[in-house]
Amino acid sequence: MPHQNPHVLQISCQDETGLVYQITKVLFEHGANILKNDEFVDAESKRFFMRTEFSCQDRKLDEPALRNALLSNLPKDAEVKLCPCQNKNIVVLATKEHHCLGDILIRYAYDELNANILAVISNHNTLQPLVAKFGIPFHYISHKNKTREEHEGAVVKALEIYDPEFLVLAKYMRILTPDFVAKYPNRIINIHHSFLPAFIGANPYKQAFDRGVKIIGATAHYVNNDLDEGPIIEQDVIDVNHRFSAKDMAKAGRDVEKIVLAKALKLVFEDRVFINGNKTAIF
Amino acid sequence: MPHQNPHVLQISCQDETGLVYQITKVLFEHGANILKNDEFVDAESKRFFMRTEFSCQDRKLDEPALRNALLSNLPKDAEVKLCPCQNKNIVVLATKEHHCLGDILIRYAYDELNANILAVISNHNTLQPLVAKFGIPFHYISHKNKTREEHEGAVVKALEIYDPEFLVLAKYMRILTPDFVAKYPNRIINIHHSFLPAFIGANPYKQAFDRGVKIIGATAHYVNNDLDEGPIIEQDVIDVNHRFSAKDMAKAGRDVEKIVLAKALKLVFEDRVFINGNKTAIF
Amino acid sequence: MPHQNPHVLQISCQDETGLVYQITKVLFEHGANILKNDEFVDAESKRFFMRTEFSCQDRKLDEPALRNALLSNLPKDAEVKLCPCQNKNIVVLATKEHHCLGDILIRYAYDELNANILAVISNHNTLQPLVAKFGIPFHYISHKNKTREEHEGAVVKALEIYDPEFLVLAKYMRILTPDFVAKYPNRIINIHHSFLPAFIGANPYKQAFDRGVKIIGATAHYVNNDLDEGPIIEQDVIDVNHRFSAKDMAKAGRDVEKIVLAKALKLVFEDRVFINGNKTAIF
Amino acid sequence: MPHQNPHVLQISCQDETGLVYQITKVLFEHGANILKNDEFVDAESKRFFMRTEFSCQDRKLDEPALRNALLSNLPKDAEVKLCPCQNKNIVVLATKEHHCLGDILIRYAYDELNANILAVISNHNTLQPLVAKFGIPFHYISHKNKTREEHEGAVVKALEIYDPEFLVLAKYMRILTPDFVAKYPNRIINIHHSFLPAFIGANPYKQAFDRGVKIIGATAHYVNNDLDEGPIIEQDVIDVNHRFSAKDMAKAGRDVEKIVLAKALKLVFEDRVFINGNKTAIF
Repeated sequence: MPHQNPHVLQISCQDETGLVYQITKVLFEHGANILKNDEFVDAESKRFFMRTEFSCQDRKLDEPALRNALLSNLPKDAEVKLCPCQNKNIVVLATKEHHCLGDILIRYAYDELNANILAVISNHNTLQPLVAKFGIPFHYISHKNKTREEHEGAVVKALEIYDPEFLVLAKYMRILTPDFVAKYPNRIINIHHSFLPAFIGANPYKQAFDRGVKIIGATAHYVNNDLDEGPIIEQDVIDVNHRFSAKDMAKAGRDVEKIVLAKALKLVFEDRVFINGNKTAIF
Repeated sequence: MPHQNPHVLQISCQDETGLVYQITKVLFEHGANILKNDEFVDAESKRFFMRTEFSCQDRKLDEPALRNALLSNLPKDAEVKLCPCQNKNIVVLATKEHHCLGDILIRYAYDELNANILAVISNHNTLQPLVAKFGIPFHYISHKNKTREEHEGAVVKALEIYDPEFLVLAKYMRILTPDFVAKYPNRIINIHHSFLPAFIGANPYKQAFDRGVKIIGATAHYVNNDLDEGPIIEQDVIDVNHRFSAKDMAKAGRDVEKIVLAKALKLVFEDRVFINGNKTAIF
Repeated sequence: MPHQNPHVLQISCQDETGLVYQITKVLFEHGANILKNDEFVDAESKRFFMRTEFSCQDRKLDEPALRNALLSNLPKDAEVKLCPCQNKNIVVLATKEHHCLGDILIRYAYDELNANILAVISNHNTLQPLVAKFGIPFHYISHKNKTREEHEGAVVKALEIYDPEFLVLAKYMRILTPDFVAKYPNRIINIHHSFLPAFIGANPYKQAFDRGVKIIGATAHYVNNDLDEGPIIEQDVIDVNHRFSAKDMAKAGRDVEKIVLAKALKLVFEDRVFINGNKTAIF
Repeated sequence: MPHQNPHVLQISCQDETGLVYQITKVLFEHGANILKNDEFVDAESKRFFMRTEFSCQDRKLDEPALRNALLSNLPKDAEVKLCPCQNKNIVVLATKEHHCLGDILIRYAYDELNANILAVISNHNTLQPLVAKFGIPFHYISHKNKTREEHEGAVVKALEIYDPEFLVLAKYMRILTPDFVAKYPNRIINIHHSFLPAFIGANPYKQAFDRGVKIIGATAHYVNNDLDEGPIIEQDVIDVNHRFSAKDMAKAGRDVEKIVLAKALKLVFEDRVFINGNKTAIF
């Protein structure tokens, strides 16, 4: 029998003695059966993080009551997020490269993405035929003959149609303005084709080739105003050697990029990620 | 300021609603400040596991009182283990190979092992000079001209002097009898030079070479009566290719063996490992 | 400027002194410019393997003349394979799972597979819509109400239309008869969802779960008559832990399966793999 | 029977057609039996690299004659290095940390290092007891009350006694002057405790912690005048997560540091590494 009405509870607040006890007491009193529970205290900031998966087998969950009960038992700075376990609504932004988008589309087609892709937006029309195969709206919004602000304005207008919970940058090769980023705080996820913070910026594979590294990688992260500097969600690496040209590295890197992005999306869409300053805590 | 009087609490029992609440309530009432907390419910056996690191900042811990309070609030089958965070006492058994023993000795010399090595026992005297460098008693107990039982009897006699909490088999190339294993239930840790369950038994590198695998590994596990079949604690692998002879594989494997064993020992000696049937749950 | 008329030369023969000299002399005399060269001598069988990528910049290659010159300078048992660098023709066999097939199709759609997919054959019609998106013939050949021989007869009949150089088993969940395998010697590539030789046979993820391993993997191999026993081409692994159910392992394993299969196909289709008894030598 | 009189030949020169043929012809004529052979052409610089392991079974090798014959058949810029397969003479420099030095000492004690450790030099006396266990001269050369140049002068004076082929910096926490580095061109090997070029400079684990990376690493490289910028020999990584403090990362990093350094030393001491500008080609 599957768990009835499963939810994820995310709490963060200043640490103090007895928090787990207080929270689990409230959950117990509201008939919640804990399926999984994880806690973490940041030793520097003394901030407490707790993620709880629970089900309510006998009755429907009274979400506002639970939330109020929690807040009244927690420190004043507490942030409480309560989500039913269901797919997120997303829009994917891409440019010309197909590998991350293709991987996402296959997962979506078989309901393995924990998300509904509402649309794909691109500044090129290269990927239109791929997206069309999967019956998803494709918006070609060229950046040509537009200022950065004009182009982003057009993208925002398209996004407003869909009102997505998350934007996924699947090799979207445009730098975003602070204004754009500010519209979607902690809701934009990017895949960068290097093992950050190595090789920030353009052409990381060329940089890696020139440096002669023996390992290359990819990094999925939240986007904030500083290029390639947002909180890191997931990273992975592969071995390379002197026989790899910069182009060979880019080819080999595609597989690690797409897998790292997919893993990060799974973590985010299952509400497993806390943003803690410029870092993440992931359960 | 370091945490005062840190302890690890390990609880396992039949799962039921409210366990985390009940346990953290008792801890709260006994002045315990939870530093880290992890729970797990085995979906098949419906067994609950919880490991808690806590400190008691204001007063000395009344261990028996805490234990009794926990037991009276838990299901009848509950197992409660309460340990202060301190080094374990161990004896190492080895044969001729030096790499695992050498690695353990260096860690021990710099107090990185979470353990006190009371003695090293070997069925050869090859490693005596290495052990002597570190000022640890070395017992050479040859198996020659002895039955398996006679040899083990002599080993047990030596062990009785030291009364260790754990036996570490650091490439001890003798098969243990059920009687010997039964004397140290869940207290013997072995490193096997393959990625179990591949290549059980003798000469795993030769087996790996003959099979033409592209990856080899090592496995640290608890020893039970079935050869190479005890609960797995830690595994890791390295890449090999057609240029590796069986001997090259064995050489390359030494590094993964010693690191896997060291990681497993750290996990066990920090009381992070639960044995769950023939598996482990590790926090 | 790209290399003109690039070829791959694969030679294997009994080892003797001077082979590299003899072979490179012939290549030099035929105007071949060596781009990459790799040799290997199997220390057990004393067999020599050499793979050479070369171009002929000034003139067209006289393949028969080069082959004859090589054979007349090599030991009598020499096998010489000379292939232009071009896509292989393949047929993919699958059952119900989409992840390996989907990954192959995306690569094929962007000409990253080093192969032309002539058709997909399946014993279920589950994957027909996915294959249709990419405009590739799909043959649904059910095994229901057929003996194994009847079913394979129908598959062979379909294959004869396409005359592929390689068959790719992309999670094809049927055991092949020796007669079928014998029709395509060293031309069938399978992905097995375990780190072989661990967990041979059915339900490897369930086996892995039951054994409590900390690492799972996937293996791409040539198919011979013994189930899961053919020469291994590529393997990779991922970490798991006690929180993974058998189903979680299967889900997590999909990504490693598809990447391992893709890597193996690239190696085979670029003529990088020698079969050496039941092993491979890969350059 | 082991190979008689094994040698390693390293050749680098401008690429041209027929080099492998010319070189193997000379080797054949001098009675050399090729055991392993690897070539590489740098596509950017058009430079050719070849490493050959060979034996001379019937007669003693006439090294000068072979070298002359090679040079007269190769482009004028050719560099030819011919080494018998034997241990290198090295001096190890360290500061206070024991893990890399300890690992090297154990390998040395069992003749697994491909090197003779002539002495250990340190700017602290912390590691003296460890080195003394292995009967190796230990030079404590404090940097206190000395200018950088005075301190290095004292180190050079100690080094002159031993005339080592290579200097190994096993966590030697002193920045070297260009003059010092110039005395030992391509002969100083360092282990840096990060995945270069991420986290260049001081306290890389603190930097990694602050950035919130999910993977940390270590890099072994030749030392040139630019801090942490020399040609990379070997790198490896391990996973970390939000539960790791900077100190935990440093502890976990020790194992990857010592293994990466040991692998790099093996490659260098077996004459497998070519320096190609600021990169390496490794066979």
